[in-house]
Amino acid sequence: MGRVIADITMTLDGFVAGPNDGIENPLGEGGDRIHQWLYDSASWRELHGHEGGEARADGKLVEESFERTGAIVMGKRMFENGDGPNGWADHPPFHMPVFVLTHESRAPKVLEDTTFTFITDGIESALEQARAAAGDKDVAVGGGANAIQQFIKAGLLDELQVHVAHVLLGDGIPLFGRTGPEKIELEATRVMDSPGVTHLRFRLQP
Amino acid sequence: MGRVIADITMTLDGFVAGPNDGIENPLGEGGDRIHQWLYDSASWRELHGHEGGEARADGKLVEESFERTGAIVMGKRMFENGDGPNGWADHPPFHMPVFVLTHESRAPKVLEDTTFTFITDGIESALEQARAAAGDKDVAVGGGANAIQQFIKAGLLDELQVHVAHVLLGDGIPLFGRTGPEKIELEATRVMDSPGVTHLRFRLQP
Repeated sequence: MGRVIADITMTLDGFVAGPNDGIENPLGEGGDRIHQWLYDSASWRELHGHEGGEARADGKLVEESFERTGAIVMGKRMFENGDGPNGWADHPPFHMPVFVLTHESRAPKVLEDTTFTFITDGIESALEQARAAAGDKDVAVGGGANAIQQFIKAGLLDELQVHVAHVLLGDGIPLFGRTGPEKIELEATRVMDSPGVTHLRFRLQP
Repeated sequence: MGRVIADITMTLDGFVAGPNDGIENPLGEGGDRIHQWLYDSASWRELHGHEGGEARADGKLVEESFERTGAIVMGKRMFENGDGPNGWADHPPFHMPVFVLTHESRAPKVLEDTTFTFITDGIESALEQARAAAGDKDVAVGGGANAIQQFIKAGLLDELQVHVAHVLLGDGIPLFGRTGPEKIELEATRVMDSPGVTHLRFRLQP
């Protein structure tokens, strides 16, 4: 059985998106800066159907995450922002099954090679279905912040990869914030420094 | 003239102290975990008049910071918490002049080799006096979070060294939070990985 991982970019001041995110501006104001390292990466551009980009050393992290992941769980807001006209524009970059946490039941949505299944009965159910779809591969909790927090709190996350973008955004959606009084120890399994970003990978202590 | 630097440890979720800090518990609940890397370090223990500790590779960061710093600016809360019976216990670990940002004027306080001077007319005045005391050496903004934020906002900080402790604390005093809409680019000048902590050093873009 694969692991359950979260893989997300945040700023040094802890934001995963800028303020005033929405369908028109999926990453919020200034949010493009957070993910600049990805946009610059040839590996990421290829997954997203774009040409060009740099052959950055950390491109291998993008490839590795893609290769080892068999299914994705994401929150409703991330889906709705991405599904809008300024997000994936009908070309979702996942290329694998996606399970969306939501409160409204609806039929699955198919966009190119990606099927979005809507889960209304919570993260454990979403994880069970994602595990079944992923087979031996990992399940990635794609975001947003709230979905990742829920998985951490429930003790369901095995690994956390945080890409710390070298910028102070000053406002936006925090990855963590005041999530509760339970202290969680992290064991660093890899630290990689790259231009504009430091990649930290942790195993969560059981 | 030396640089103006801030050098502080925060958790991955951005806290520099746990909740409910005060004179009885200067670092808040769970706050000792944040600074564990320092307590483990022989270099830090020596500065604080304790024996033992590990000869950690990152001990050289502690020595380097101490050697290049000629004066410290700190907020009133940090002073009061440290000056209490569970803080420095009359043996302050600074061994150089300290300038305390406050609203009440009071006479300087001398504890062993450290003189605390109380500054009531703001960070620029504190910086001017600290620079005069530091000579060619750096001025360190020792904390807390609010003092560091004020220096960043005023464009007075040259360098920021953040030690990211590998723990999620879940609550406490955030280093950054929603500090305002001004995006600040950081240039990483050193990344060092150590047991339990990753040291990130940045130059702030002017």
